[in-house]
Amino acid sequence: MNEHRPGYLIRPNPADPRLTRRVAGVNEAGERVETSVTVERALTLYLNAQEIVTMMTIGDYPEDLAVGYLLNQNMLKPDDVVTGVEYDEDLSVVVVRTGHETNFEDKLKKRTQTSGCAQGTAFGDLMEALETVRLPAAPLRTSWLYRLTHAVNTTPSLYLEAGAIHGCVLAREDRPLVYMEDVGRHNAVDKIAGWMFRHREGGGDKIFYTTGRLTSEMVIKTVRMGIPILVSRSGFTAWGVELARQCGLTLIGRARGKRFLALSGEERIVYDQDLSYVEEESARSRRKGAADE
Amino acid sequence: MNEHRPGYLIRPNPADPRLTRRVAGVNEAGERVETSVTVERALTLYLNAQEIVTMMTIGDYPEDLAVGYLLNQNMLKPDDVVTGVEYDEDLSVVVVRTGHETNFEDKLKKRTQTSGCAQGTAFGDLMEALETVRLPAAPLRTSWLYRLTHAVNTTPSLYLEAGAIHGCVLAREDRPLVYMEDVGRHNAVDKIAGWMFRHREGGGDKIFYTTGRLTSEMVIKTVRMGIPILVSRSGFTAWGVELARQCGLTLIGRARGKRFLALSGEERIVYDQDLSYVEEESARSRRKGAADE
Repeated sequence: MNEHRPGYLIRPNPADPRLTRRVAGVNEAGERVETSVTVERALTLYLNAQEIVTMMTIGDYPEDLAVGYLLNQNMLKPDDVVTGVEYDEDLSVVVVRTGHETNFEDKLKKRTQTSGCAQGTAFGDLMEALETVRLPAAPLRTSWLYRLTHAVNTTPSLYLEAGAIHGCVLAREDRPLVYMEDVGRHNAVDKIAGWMFRHREGGGDKIFYTTGRLTSEMVIKTVRMGIPILVSRSGFTAWGVELARQCGLTLIGRARGKRFLALSGEERIVYDQDLSYVEEESARSRRKGAADE
Repeated sequence: MNEHRPGYLIRPNPADPRLTRRVAGVNEAGERVETSVTVERALTLYLNAQEIVTMMTIGDYPEDLAVGYLLNQNMLKPDDVVTGVEYDEDLSVVVVRTGHETNFEDKLKKRTQTSGCAQGTAFGDLMEALETVRLPAAPLRTSWLYRLTHAVNTTPSLYLEAGAIHGCVLAREDRPLVYMEDVGRHNAVDKIAGWMFRHREGGGDKIFYTTGRLTSEMVIKTVRMGIPILVSRSGFTAWGVELARQCGLTLIGRARGKRFLALSGEERIVYDQDLSYVEEESARSRRKGAADE
């Protein structure tokens, strides 16, 4: 297999001194040692004048994170007009401005008497929004899948530098385009959703790769981005599989080395890769163990 | 090393048919295969008449999860009186009742105009609550640590059965007491917090073990449970380390086989284990890869 040279639009920058810190400690033998740890920062998000949430994030791409969070919580609709995104590093605040008051703000006012919690409100909306999505019949060639995962696993990242972090990659065919990492639960996927919205990039010809588990929430977010194929090196949950089948999403898990398992949408898979040419994932490219939370 | 026989009060029940499901799919060779996946269910939590949140959970121990969630969000105070916890399996609802309206409900009413979101409100409160905690000077013997992690890793679990799940263990010395698993982000730790509250079990003589990363949120929750020692097989984040140092929490990460790394509170560690007797973690007891989200 030729070395694949990814042409990333955005890739991790593990050399950025703001993203990791050296910390001293002791090991099992009582020896003083030093290690790199990932930095996480509080970031408070406003939608116009409304305070929405304080997130823990590594702090890169706050504008994409803000917009993506609002989209994935259904607080911002795909056809809403964002007139500005302002990030204040000193205050750790990001403000997303829309032309007119969004539907979410109306809803919040009406429902505070009974619900009061954005999380609870947004969950039902998320499920509703899924029903209108139609994912295209795009193919997934297994040759793309192997080249893509190899490219991602060999890309220098915060994960390889300090661990304890998640990664998500937006890809087209075998080419990774946008690779985001974050400590926060779904910040990495939200940053990609925000990037797609802000760059008017459609999901129909894309593949989404995540280091995380294939839960219902990950499936919902992928479908909402309009992406027909979701790939992970990790495992599945039952409801993740069920939702993927309902939405016609191709769901591929446990993708490590030459192995993978598809539990939904297998009709998109084109087996064009001769498996005898795929090496088992090399020790060098194998991730140190999955980032877990 | 003698085989350690844990006397669990609560342990995973991977044989429970409600917790996993068999699902069919295709593998990398295009062959039909079947696999076990973890079930996740929506559970809506009420505090008295107030709807708080809908959580995704495997659904065991909903009462512990409900109480633990409220405690860890600071919506319920350690000295609040819980008069009842009612779980309705058909409605997927759990209601926690308190003797009088809690402080949180007051706060929610006052702050809906400016904040409106329970998440945002609770975060500041969590940090405030940390300042009053004093963790005891309990020892951590390395012999306990090795026996404890060995016992946990060899306990039959949903993780070993189906993967894609997190585990947390409440332990005393080398003995695991309560081992909870869940798909949800912090449900496993919330279930243990709820169990401790409902059984009036203090944290001062305990050790907390998690499969997840040592983030600020995990540190905050451990400190709030009054537990002086937090152990994980996974890595650290910078703010997790910083908070642990501020609170005097012993923070041990990357605990695999004979290895570990302490980045805070190393004065509690008593090196009583002769390392030449500790075998490298055997292939059998090694977890398949960390549960990641």
